[in-house]
Amino acid sequence: MSRGSAKRPRKPKPGGGHQLVYLPLGGAGEIGMNLYLYGYGREQDRKWIMVDCGVTFADFRDPGIDIILPDITFIEQRRASLLAIVLTHAHEDHYGAVAHLWPRLRAPVYATPFCAQLLQGKLEETGLAGEVPVKHVTPGGSLSLGPFDISLIAMTHSIPETYALAIRTALGNVLHSGDWRIDRRPVIPPDLDEPALRAFGKEGCRALICDSTNAMREGTSPCESDVEEGLYEVIRHATGRVAVTTFASNFGRLLSVARAARRTERHVCLVGRSMHRVVAAARETGLIADFPEVLPEQDFAHIPRDKVLGLCTGSQGEPRAALSRIASSSHGNIVLEDGDLVIFSSRTIPGNEKDVAEVQNNLAALGVSIVTASDRLVHATGHPQRGDLQQLYRWLKPQIVVPMHGEMRHLLAHARFALDCGVGQAVMARNGEMIQLAPDPAGPVDEVASGRLHMDGRLLLPAGDGPARQRRRLSFSGALAITLVLDEDRGLSEHPQIAQFGLPPVGAGGDPMGTMILDAIDDVLEKVARRRGGDDAELAESVRRAVVRAVAQAWGKRPQCQVNIVHL
Amino acid sequence: MSRGSAKRPRKPKPGGGHQLVYLPLGGAGEIGMNLYLYGYGREQDRKWIMVDCGVTFADFRDPGIDIILPDITFIEQRRASLLAIVLTHAHEDHYGAVAHLWPRLRAPVYATPFCAQLLQGKLEETGLAGEVPVKHVTPGGSLSLGPFDISLIAMTHSIPETYALAIRTALGNVLHSGDWRIDRRPVIPPDLDEPALRAFGKEGCRALICDSTNAMREGTSPCESDVEEGLYEVIRHATGRVAVTTFASNFGRLLSVARAARRTERHVCLVGRSMHRVVAAARETGLIADFPEVLPEQDFAHIPRDKVLGLCTGSQGEPRAALSRIASSSHGNIVLEDGDLVIFSSRTIPGNEKDVAEVQNNLAALGVSIVTASDRLVHATGHPQRGDLQQLYRWLKPQIVVPMHGEMRHLLAHARFALDCGVGQAVMARNGEMIQLAPDPAGPVDEVASGRLHMDGRLLLPAGDGPARQRRRLSFSGALAITLVLDEDRGLSEHPQIAQFGLPPVGAGGDPMGTMILDAIDDVLEKVARRRGGDDAELAESVRRAVVRAVAQAWGKRPQCQVNIVHL
Repeated sequence: MSRGSAKRPRKPKPGGGHQLVYLPLGGAGEIGMNLYLYGYGREQDRKWIMVDCGVTFADFRDPGIDIILPDITFIEQRRASLLAIVLTHAHEDHYGAVAHLWPRLRAPVYATPFCAQLLQGKLEETGLAGEVPVKHVTPGGSLSLGPFDISLIAMTHSIPETYALAIRTALGNVLHSGDWRIDRRPVIPPDLDEPALRAFGKEGCRALICDSTNAMREGTSPCESDVEEGLYEVIRHATGRVAVTTFASNFGRLLSVARAARRTERHVCLVGRSMHRVVAAARETGLIADFPEVLPEQDFAHIPRDKVLGLCTGSQGEPRAALSRIASSSHGNIVLEDGDLVIFSSRTIPGNEKDVAEVQNNLAALGVSIVTASDRLVHATGHPQRGDLQQLYRWLKPQIVVPMHGEMRHLLAHARFALDCGVGQAVMARNGEMIQLAPDPAGPVDEVASGRLHMDGRLLLPAGDGPARQRRRLSFSGALAITLVLDEDRGLSEHPQIAQFGLPPVGAGGDPMGTMILDAIDDVLEKVARRRGGDDAELAESVRRAVVRAVAQAWGKRPQCQVNIVHL
Repeated sequence: MSRGSAKRPRKPKPGGGHQLVYLPLGGAGEIGMNLYLYGYGREQDRKWIMVDCGVTFADFRDPGIDIILPDITFIEQRRASLLAIVLTHAHEDHYGAVAHLWPRLRAPVYATPFCAQLLQGKLEETGLAGEVPVKHVTPGGSLSLGPFDISLIAMTHSIPETYALAIRTALGNVLHSGDWRIDRRPVIPPDLDEPALRAFGKEGCRALICDSTNAMREGTSPCESDVEEGLYEVIRHATGRVAVTTFASNFGRLLSVARAARRTERHVCLVGRSMHRVVAAARETGLIADFPEVLPEQDFAHIPRDKVLGLCTGSQGEPRAALSRIASSSHGNIVLEDGDLVIFSSRTIPGNEKDVAEVQNNLAALGVSIVTASDRLVHATGHPQRGDLQQLYRWLKPQIVVPMHGEMRHLLAHARFALDCGVGQAVMARNGEMIQLAPDPAGPVDEVASGRLHMDGRLLLPAGDGPARQRRRLSFSGALAITLVLDEDRGLSEHPQIAQFGLPPVGAGGDPMGTMILDAIDDVLEKVARRRGGDDAELAESVRRAVVRAVAQAWGKRPQCQVNIVHL
C-alpha cells in the first residue's frame, strides 16, 4: 500500500470484450454477511477483488446455527484470479467470515490497523493466526491491485477506520461506499473526507455502489456528539447506579458513553468480554488517546452508587450477555436495584424484540428505570438516511447507482430514491447477480451460484434442506426410533425397542405413547405374518406408517419416525 | 340479566372475615391469556366470578405449540363457587380459552350477542356447542351474581360491544376496565359511556383494575374516524389495486376500510377465512347495518385495478395467511403486481418483525408499494395511553389502582403513573397474587398456583419442562437412538441399530456420523467385555456417554441420546 494522490493517470482504454463487473455474493437483498466482488477483464481472464467478507446471525428458523456465511463457491473456483480481500471496517457483518473462509480463498487481506487487530483475535480462535497475510491500509491511502487502482476515502460510521473504496479502472471509476453516514461531528477522527469525495466526483464517477440500510428513512440522523450530549443529560440526573448497553463494536458509542461518564464524575466499568476486546484493540492500535481509564467489573459493587457506570453487553437481550444476567440477578459482579438506571443506547434489531422486552421486564421488576432511544437522544444510526444519500449523490454525480447492503425493500426504495434525485440509472442487483458496470449498457449480464453456509457447531455446511431444517421439523413434532428384532418366522423375538424424543404423554393418566405404539406395531406384524415373504424395507415402511398414523390420531401431529429391523 | 339503573341500594355491611379480593391468573405480568378472578366472602365460603378467559400465541420458544392458556387449577378446585365467566369482548386473548377450558369449570358464560356468536363457532370446533350455557348481556345492562352486582359500562376499543364491569359489593365498588381507550368518534356505536363512569365515580370507586398496555406512552391516540380518513387519503391516490391488511378481529378497522373503499368507489373483497367469520358474525347479530357489500376473493382478478380493494388477513406476516401467500405469488385468487399498493393497517406485534419484513420484501420485489403506520395515519391503538388513563382516573376518582393487562414494565409504569396523577394507592399484582381490595388495608394476601398450559397438537399439557422444551433442545442438537443386540456373552450379536435425527455429516466426504458412532460403541463394548458382569443400565449409560462424547468432539454439540439393549 502506498499513500498516493487522489488523481492518477488513466490507463489506456482496453480492447474489446473487457468488462468491469460487480457481483454481490452476500448483503444484497438480505441483511448481513456482506461480500461484494468486482471483476475486470474478459470473462476468460478476469481479475477479481473481494470487498468485505462478513457473517450474519441465525435466528430460530435455523436452530442450532450461530452464524451464517455467504456461499463463496463462485470465487473459490476462481481463487487464482482473486487479487485481494479488502475489508472496509471491523463489523462482524463485514469481516466476520474471514477467519472461517480464508482457507478456501488464500488471498491477501487488507484492513486498517484496528480492524486487523480485531481480525487477529478471530484468526487465533480458528487456528489461522500467522497463516493469513493481513496488510495494513489507512483511510487516505491507496492500493494498486492489478487492473484496479483503489483510494481509501475516510467515511464516518459507528466504528472508527471506516472507508469507502474509490476504484479506478481503465473502463471507468466506481465508488463502493461501505457502511457510512454523514457525521459532521464524529467523536473519533478522522472526519468524513468530503474533499476526496468531491474530487472523485469531478474525475467522473461511473457508478456508486451504496449502503441502502436507511434508504426508507427521510432526513438525516443526529451526530454522535449529539448522542454524547443526550447521554450526558440523562446520566447527570441519575442518582443511583447507571448501566449503559450498546454493541461493543460501536466504538464511537463506547467513547461517547465514557466521555459522558467522565463529565458526570462516574467511573466506567466494562462488563462483558467483547467490551474488553474492542477497547483493548483500540488501545493497542493507538486509535484513541483519551479513552478514559476503565475499571474491571469486580469494582462495580464497591464504588458509590452515584459514582459508577457499567458499560454492558446485551443490548439485544441476548440471554447469555451481561445485561440479561444482571436483569435476572444472576450476574456475579453487577447488582442493580431500586433507583438504578439502565440506558439502552441501541436500536433493537428485528427479531430480538421479545428478548429485549424480557430483559426490560426483569429490570423493571427490580425497580430499575429504563431509558431507550424512544425516550431520549441516546442512539443514532450509523447508516445513511435519504438526506445523506442525496448529499453523496451531489458530491459524486454518479451515472449509475447500484443499491447494496439491505433487504429487498431497502434496495428498491434506494433505487427509486436515486432516480427521484436525478441519477441517470439505478441498477438492482441481488446476491448472485452479476452486473456490468462498464462499458455501456450497464445492467445484469449473468447469474451465478450464491447462497448461505451454516456454522453448525464447528462444521461449515451448506444451508438449505440440511440438519438445521430437519431439527426445525423435530421441534414441531419430535421423533421416534423403533427397532424390531425378528425371529426366523418374521415374528417378534423381543419387545420392540422404542426411543421417543419430544412426544407428549397421552390419555388422562399421562400414559406415554408407548402402549399405543406397541399396539400399532402388533397390528402390522399380525397382518404381515399372514401374508409372508415381504422384504424388510416394506415391513419397516408399513410399521412406520402405522405408528405415525396412530400417534397422529392421538396427538394431531406426525413425528419423524425411523424403523430398523434386526434378524436373529 | 336485567337492565338496571346505575345506582342501587348498598347491601348491608358484612361481619368479620369478609374480603373482596382480586386474583389474576393470566394477563398480569405477561401478554395475553387474560383471566381475572374476583372473590367475595370469607375464605372458607368465598364466591368467585371470572372475568375473561383468553389465550396467547406461542413463539419459537415453545415449538409445536399453537396456543397457550392460563393454568386454572386454583379455580377448577373451587368451581362449585364459581358463579360465572363474564367475557368483556370478543378478542382471542380475552375469550379464546373458553372453548378449551370450560369443561373444567362448567359455569355459565356471559357475553354480548356478537361475542357469543363468535364463541359459538369456537365451541363447534371443540365439540362443545349446545353444552355451554352462554347468556347474552349488553353494555348498559346489569348482572346480579351472588354478592356481586354488576353493571356493564360501554367502552370504546377496536372491536364493538366492549365493556367495563362496574362491580358493586357490600365491601365496596370496583371497576374492571376491560380493554379500552377513549375514542370520541368511534366508527361503531355505542360511544364510551362517560356518564355511567362519572356516576360510578360519584358513588365511590374503591379500586380501578385497569388496562396497562400503553401506560408507557404519553398522550392520546387518534380516533378510529381519523384512521378512516387517513386510509381514505391513501387509497384515493392509488391508481392500481389496493390491499389492506389488519387483524380480522379489529372489526372497527374493517368498517373503516370498507367505508374508505366505498368513498373511493372500490369494491371490497374479503380475503382470508377469519375476515369472513367476523363479518358474518357482525351481520348475523345485526351489529352493523351499513357494512358495505363484500365480494368473494374470486372476483378480485376480474374487477378493474382501480376499482378493487382486498381486505386481507396476514398483517403479522403469518406464513399461511392470505397476504403472505399473495406476496410470494402463491395465492390462487389474488395477484398483486407493479403499481399496486398494500396498506398495513396494523402494528407489528413484537416477535413478528422478521415475518412482516419478509412479506414486505416479497411485495417490494413484485413492485408493490407499501404504506405502514409509520408512513401515514392508517392505524390507531385500541388501548389507553397516559392521557386516557388520566381521564379515567378523573371520572372515577379511585382510591386504589391495580394495573392489569401488560408485561411487568407496563404494570410498573402504570402504577407509578397512577401515583403521579394523585391516586392514593397503586397495588401491583402479578398472575397468582391475590390482592385484598377491601376492607383496608388493601394489598397482597396470598399467592396461589398459576402458570401456563400448552395446546400441543390436540393435547392440553402443563407448560414447563414438557415436550415443547424437550423439542427445543432437539432443535439445537438433534437426537440419536441406539439399539444394541447382545448375545449370551454380552457381545454384539448384530450391528448396532442407529437412528439419527438432525445430526450433520462429518468429515470432508460428508460422511454420516455412523462410522464414528460405531467406533465409540465398539470401544465401550471391548472394555466391558474385559470386565464382565455389569448390568444393562450401566452398559447403556457407558455407551451413551461415549457416543455423545465422540459426537461432541466432531461436531461441538451434544445430541440427546437413548441407548436400548436387547438380549437374545
